[in-house]
Amino acid sequence: MRMIEIIAKKRDGLELSEEEIQYWVTGLTNGEIPDYQSSALLMAIVCKGMTDIETTHLTMAMMHSGDVLDLSSIHGIKVDKHSTGGVGDKTSLVLGPMVAACGAKVAKMSGRGLGHTGGTIDKLEAIPGFSVTLSQSEFISQVNRISLSIVGQTGSLVPADKKLYALRDVTATVPSIALIASSIMSKKLAAGANTILLDVKYGDGAFMHTPEKAEELAKAMIAIGKLSNRDTRAMITDMNQPLGIAIGNALEVKEAIDTLKGHGPADFTELCFQAGTIMLLQANICTDAADARKLLEDSISSKTAFNKFREFVAAQGGDVDCIDHPQKLAQARYVTPLINQKEGYITSIKATQLGISAMKLGAGRATKDDIINPAVGLLVYKKIGDFVKKGDILVDIHHDNELSVEFMQELNSSFVIEDHPGQPIALIAKYCNCLRYCSQYLFCLY
Amino acid sequence: MRMIEIIAKKRDGLELSEEEIQYWVTGLTNGEIPDYQSSALLMAIVCKGMTDIETTHLTMAMMHSGDVLDLSSIHGIKVDKHSTGGVGDKTSLVLGPMVAACGAKVAKMSGRGLGHTGGTIDKLEAIPGFSVTLSQSEFISQVNRISLSIVGQTGSLVPADKKLYALRDVTATVPSIALIASSIMSKKLAAGANTILLDVKYGDGAFMHTPEKAEELAKAMIAIGKLSNRDTRAMITDMNQPLGIAIGNALEVKEAIDTLKGHGPADFTELCFQAGTIMLLQANICTDAADARKLLEDSISSKTAFNKFREFVAAQGGDVDCIDHPQKLAQARYVTPLINQKEGYITSIKATQLGISAMKLGAGRATKDDIINPAVGLLVYKKIGDFVKKGDILVDIHHDNELSVEFMQELNSSFVIEDHPGQPIALIAKYCNCLRYCSQYLFCLY
Repeated sequence: MRMIEIIAKKRDGLELSEEEIQYWVTGLTNGEIPDYQSSALLMAIVCKGMTDIETTHLTMAMMHSGDVLDLSSIHGIKVDKHSTGGVGDKTSLVLGPMVAACGAKVAKMSGRGLGHTGGTIDKLEAIPGFSVTLSQSEFISQVNRISLSIVGQTGSLVPADKKLYALRDVTATVPSIALIASSIMSKKLAAGANTILLDVKYGDGAFMHTPEKAEELAKAMIAIGKLSNRDTRAMITDMNQPLGIAIGNALEVKEAIDTLKGHGPADFTELCFQAGTIMLLQANICTDAADARKLLEDSISSKTAFNKFREFVAAQGGDVDCIDHPQKLAQARYVTPLINQKEGYITSIKATQLGISAMKLGAGRATKDDIINPAVGLLVYKKIGDFVKKGDILVDIHHDNELSVEFMQELNSSFVIEDHPGQPIALIAKYCNCLRYCSQYLFCLY
Repeated sequence: MRMIEIIAKKRDGLELSEEEIQYWVTGLTNGEIPDYQSSALLMAIVCKGMTDIETTHLTMAMMHSGDVLDLSSIHGIKVDKHSTGGVGDKTSLVLGPMVAACGAKVAKMSGRGLGHTGGTIDKLEAIPGFSVTLSQSEFISQVNRISLSIVGQTGSLVPADKKLYALRDVTATVPSIALIASSIMSKKLAAGANTILLDVKYGDGAFMHTPEKAEELAKAMIAIGKLSNRDTRAMITDMNQPLGIAIGNALEVKEAIDTLKGHGPADFTELCFQAGTIMLLQANICTDAADARKLLEDSISSKTAFNKFREFVAAQGGDVDCIDHPQKLAQARYVTPLINQKEGYITSIKATQLGISAMKLGAGRATKDDIINPAVGLLVYKKIGDFVKKGDILVDIHHDNELSVEFMQELNSSFVIEDHPGQPIALIAKYCNCLRYCSQYLFCLY
């Protein structure tokens, strides 16, 4: 087999065989295939696409490029959930304890944030003492004991994806449904859960800009899940504005605690209930969505979900005192409000821009080696469709260093305020970002 | 300017600006842009194409990546001709002396052969003593003195093309009209002639397999020529079978001498007359095609063309005795006939296969560093449409080493013999490979 023939085949729009894809992924991982050949193939894939079968072969080849977790010693159905990434997305912090409190097993590997998006692992590390590195046996025994563990992704999981992603990043070959789908799914499959719920986001703050593109990606991932015998479902949710209010690690932990206590932001709470409903159905804990929803609501009102979070933090060495008294979490030195200058309706919020502003404060990473400041971030009080008056606080900026004029201007320019409310986005934002799509776009293969 | 944005732009099918193309070619040439980025861009160009304007910018950027010849000290119109490469194509050896004898100035740089195609420089080097490396002043003064010089392409001419071609070769990005056109035209423009005649070949032995693809390439190159103010014309010629009879360097020199003496193969002679006619029109030596043709025919019958070839060989240090007595050129140790086994009509000849067989004898190079044996090669006596009987000699194999059974089988399989003659190809082959197309596909921009 020769790499140049594989490239030529894809260049000509033909379907690659399992052996050809395996040959490439093996050569890529062990360094035998030079980057200039892989990047040519990547661009051919971007331009010509891949069939579901090819994408599944790529996913499986990547999954087997490193360790594959064996969770069979955990009793019961292991559920997993993946968000394609957004701004203010602290869903795993609430969803994990909630579904675990309802009886599902959550043995989850999460990632770190880069650019305008945050990462679950960074958020958990805002809790003093919390350890995201457990041995495999500690990880498994914790899930058997308390039904929930979330750890960082180990370096030995899917090394092909790391190489491929680094190369895609510098060759303008990121935006390919097949490549994104196989990157996500190879990690999910290697992480060993029985069921996967995909929260595929669209909008300004997401990788997919339209619901149609998000649906395309969701369908590609569901096809992979089906072909590899995992119960895989997806919801398509709006990321045209931050999820909830908080952006920044300790701020998001506080918001997660609020939500687990039943007084979180409406949009975020609703997303958690809807996602949790699907996960309880996947875990065979309920057979009816209404029952599942009721069980989840009870886990909040009865505090079992909050207590599960507390138990989870304690099990991984985190300071429970900070959970009971969130004001003890890292606090930024200063809080400066962004004051609204123009009366009107908010017709658009640039979520990516807000994510980047938070990153600039120190809440995120511009490059992989940047160090995160857990205390800083933004509280974004307004949503699309809101009517705002001059003098209203749009955002509270939690910061440790002085703010430049450019920073304030950039932050201010994240809000588009007009005389008349925009059309349908207002409605969604008022109630629930995800409602518009997730009810009809709920893909179920079983 | 960032390379990744340039790649993304082409990936999305947008037109690159002159500055962006210049940025890439400069970075490629000086090594600042890594190969994995260039190969991603190359594949995007293969998939999305380039406009004539982009292709011209690429050509000009490549042309200026190294030395550009200044032929202004040569009096009169300098004509150049380029063949896209084929099997048995010794046209320059006849055409150069012919049009020079008719008054045109030929200051030509030629290439070496690779794979199944030969190169003019290799053929000239089959003449003992012939030097293909002249200083620029020697080159110019020879053309001023005798109207004709052919030298090898110097390393300092279009270095970007060398880098690009090496990368395209290993990344399956060779077949792109824009990339092929700019590669050829950058070298032609850098070589400094006033007019360019392109012999764009199609068929089994050519890079373009169909006349439509060849025409597409021709049009792209003519567009570049027009945008850079050179009189550029093209003919589309058939390469479904070798041109003339001889394949192999000394054998082709002998055939060129025969043709200059007026008794060359009909197809090859006709191609030379037709190409020469266009070149004399381009050089403003004639204004009418019939006059030009007459002048060229006279140059053969009066021996001025042959004498010009003799003069040219002498000027570049070649042994004129070998021109006067071609049997003194390198002779292979053995001549073995390939005997026909099946009566019928030749419906197809695999020109590429014949080129590769000649290469295996030592007449060509499998890799750039292979050394050529000038003596060996093939004399292919039969053409498509010919009726052949059992026992007829299809090919005389001129070889120095023993021939394997596999070699003979491969050579034999180059001929497809059927009970009935094939349809139109026979007709063309009977008379002239190029006639079918070149009369109607003669592109003239002036």
